[in-house]
Amino acid sequence: MKTGEDNLIERIRRRIPSTAGGALQVGIGDDAAVLRAPPDADWVATCDPFLEDVHFLAAAHPAEVVGYKALARATSDIAAMGARPEVFLLNLAIPANRAGRWLDGMLSGMARAARKFGLRLAGGDTSRPSEKHPKIALNITVMGLARRGRVLRRSGARRGDAIFVSGRLGAAQLGLELILRGMHRQRKWKHLLAAQFYPAPALQLGQWLAQRGVASAAMDISDGLSSDLHRLCKASGVGARIYREKIPCVTVPDKLRALPLDALTMALHGGEDYGLLFTVPKRWAARIPKSFRGTALTRIGEIVRGRGLTLTGADGKRSAIEPRGWDHFRPRAR
Amino acid sequence: MKTGEDNLIERIRRRIPSTAGGALQVGIGDDAAVLRAPPDADWVATCDPFLEDVHFLAAAHPAEVVGYKALARATSDIAAMGARPEVFLLNLAIPANRAGRWLDGMLSGMARAARKFGLRLAGGDTSRPSEKHPKIALNITVMGLARRGRVLRRSGARRGDAIFVSGRLGAAQLGLELILRGMHRQRKWKHLLAAQFYPAPALQLGQWLAQRGVASAAMDISDGLSSDLHRLCKASGVGARIYREKIPCVTVPDKLRALPLDALTMALHGGEDYGLLFTVPKRWAARIPKSFRGTALTRIGEIVRGRGLTLTGADGKRSAIEPRGWDHFRPRAR
Repeated sequence: MKTGEDNLIERIRRRIPSTAGGALQVGIGDDAAVLRAPPDADWVATCDPFLEDVHFLAAAHPAEVVGYKALARATSDIAAMGARPEVFLLNLAIPANRAGRWLDGMLSGMARAARKFGLRLAGGDTSRPSEKHPKIALNITVMGLARRGRVLRRSGARRGDAIFVSGRLGAAQLGLELILRGMHRQRKWKHLLAAQFYPAPALQLGQWLAQRGVASAAMDISDGLSSDLHRLCKASGVGARIYREKIPCVTVPDKLRALPLDALTMALHGGEDYGLLFTVPKRWAARIPKSFRGTALTRIGEIVRGRGLTLTGADGKRSAIEPRGWDHFRPRAR
Repeated sequence: MKTGEDNLIERIRRRIPSTAGGALQVGIGDDAAVLRAPPDADWVATCDPFLEDVHFLAAAHPAEVVGYKALARATSDIAAMGARPEVFLLNLAIPANRAGRWLDGMLSGMARAARKFGLRLAGGDTSRPSEKHPKIALNITVMGLARRGRVLRRSGARRGDAIFVSGRLGAAQLGLELILRGMHRQRKWKHLLAAQFYPAPALQLGQWLAQRGVASAAMDISDGLSSDLHRLCKASGVGARIYREKIPCVTVPDKLRALPLDALTMALHGGEDYGLLFTVPKRWAARIPKSFRGTALTRIGEIVRGRGLTLTGADGKRSAIEPRGWDHFRPRAR
């Protein structure tokens, strides 16, 4: 006899790739998953929440987007370590009235992301949120494999290293700005939502950097360049100087000029782009191509002595960069 | 410069054991943790939510209990696989007004549990719940190491195997019944809350069973014997017969006789005891001691052909056992 919760778990299992074998020795159906690494590999593990009204808005993010994005953003941390995604665990708190069509849509997006990133569902848990606060909560643990001694870390940046970012910065924030103004419902802006809805973890780039061993430090840009560059510099005990003209900012269409949207502000402080921020010793910087598999790699500045982060303008004037990216625990007018 | 979220993470890190080394190659401070198993070991991974108003009640469960219990219940799945706990990841969603004294209490309980179970914090994430629904949510991923080929699973029970449980059943439910009646505030019942507040994952027993290789199947009793025995039988493709007189029920004190509390009902259907349910081939059943490190091991019945679960009364009459343990997705009058 099946109980309701067991039924729900079977529904999830049917939709999402979850066949055991290889690195996943024991999958769904036992108290825990059993994971086996090849002799020359380590596991890399991360976990990320994706909460209704905090990380997504049910009125703006379709169910399918919620499933895709929840898995993509957790997988981005695996990309940032230079590892290959293998398995994930899903904790899902879902109210009764979302367990029908909404859940089907969410699972469809999550299954698509799982296939794209090469992930299998290895386990998890389901629960029903309290009736007073019937909000959806996803918590995802993603695990990947990395060659021993080849993981990318935040702490290796040294004075003189070149600073690179992948992709365009601020594109996800631009999508969010449209959502916050209710403009995401207009067909003509739909193409501007892709970066906000379907972030692309830099999996190939991360693995390439890890294999080549050219990056001295790396992390993903999840909370915004200003905050994440601060974190990388802090972990490495260094400062940074970046150049305003070099930052690959999102393009704001002319038709949106009436809105108070500044491309540089979105690029510096907007989160959720999930590109990589990485540093390369100066003598190797020329080895980094202008683009990698269709994604631009842009040299935006260099690591300097000390602790300060500065932005150099077109006029040569420098200003300090404050970490004004996404932070759940800093009061702000956002 | 530190942002608010980075400050919070440092506060957590200072309180909870988190030093890298050994199996934890890279801990807090990078995008993901790096985990290394010895050549003859596999990783065992599980994740569990612990949500305010669902898994705990802030008015009844002190902050210190929340921290302890959240980690203990996730660790119980590692015990049930026969593995040794090593590291955990913590996702914490916490409203601003709980980030002071409440958080300190929670971290104190969690640190105590981490030390007791041998766990180090390897990473995680913090977020602030939406202001409309400022509830605390913990999500914990626990990982342990198991000798290859020695994990305990649910699927190996065979006809004739003896069924055992560890500890007393219904004790955590008795504590919950007191809480639901507001009686947990009375000093005289305090000793009845221990099983509800501080569950003890059967770590030593699980590892002993896995080493000896005597158990054909095992799992922890988290949702109640009736539900969990159903799950073990389903995974093994068998049925079970247990004996009413043999079930090690919680003792309900005489002074509580006025309440409608039935010890057998609490033992069968009450959750959160976190003892082990395991089966042993008949010829080895005599090797299982009456108690293991102070915890009773009780033989309560045997595995039978087919799919049915029955309870045999003192009069020899049999009745079917329905899975009436905890289930988030089955409507019930609980």
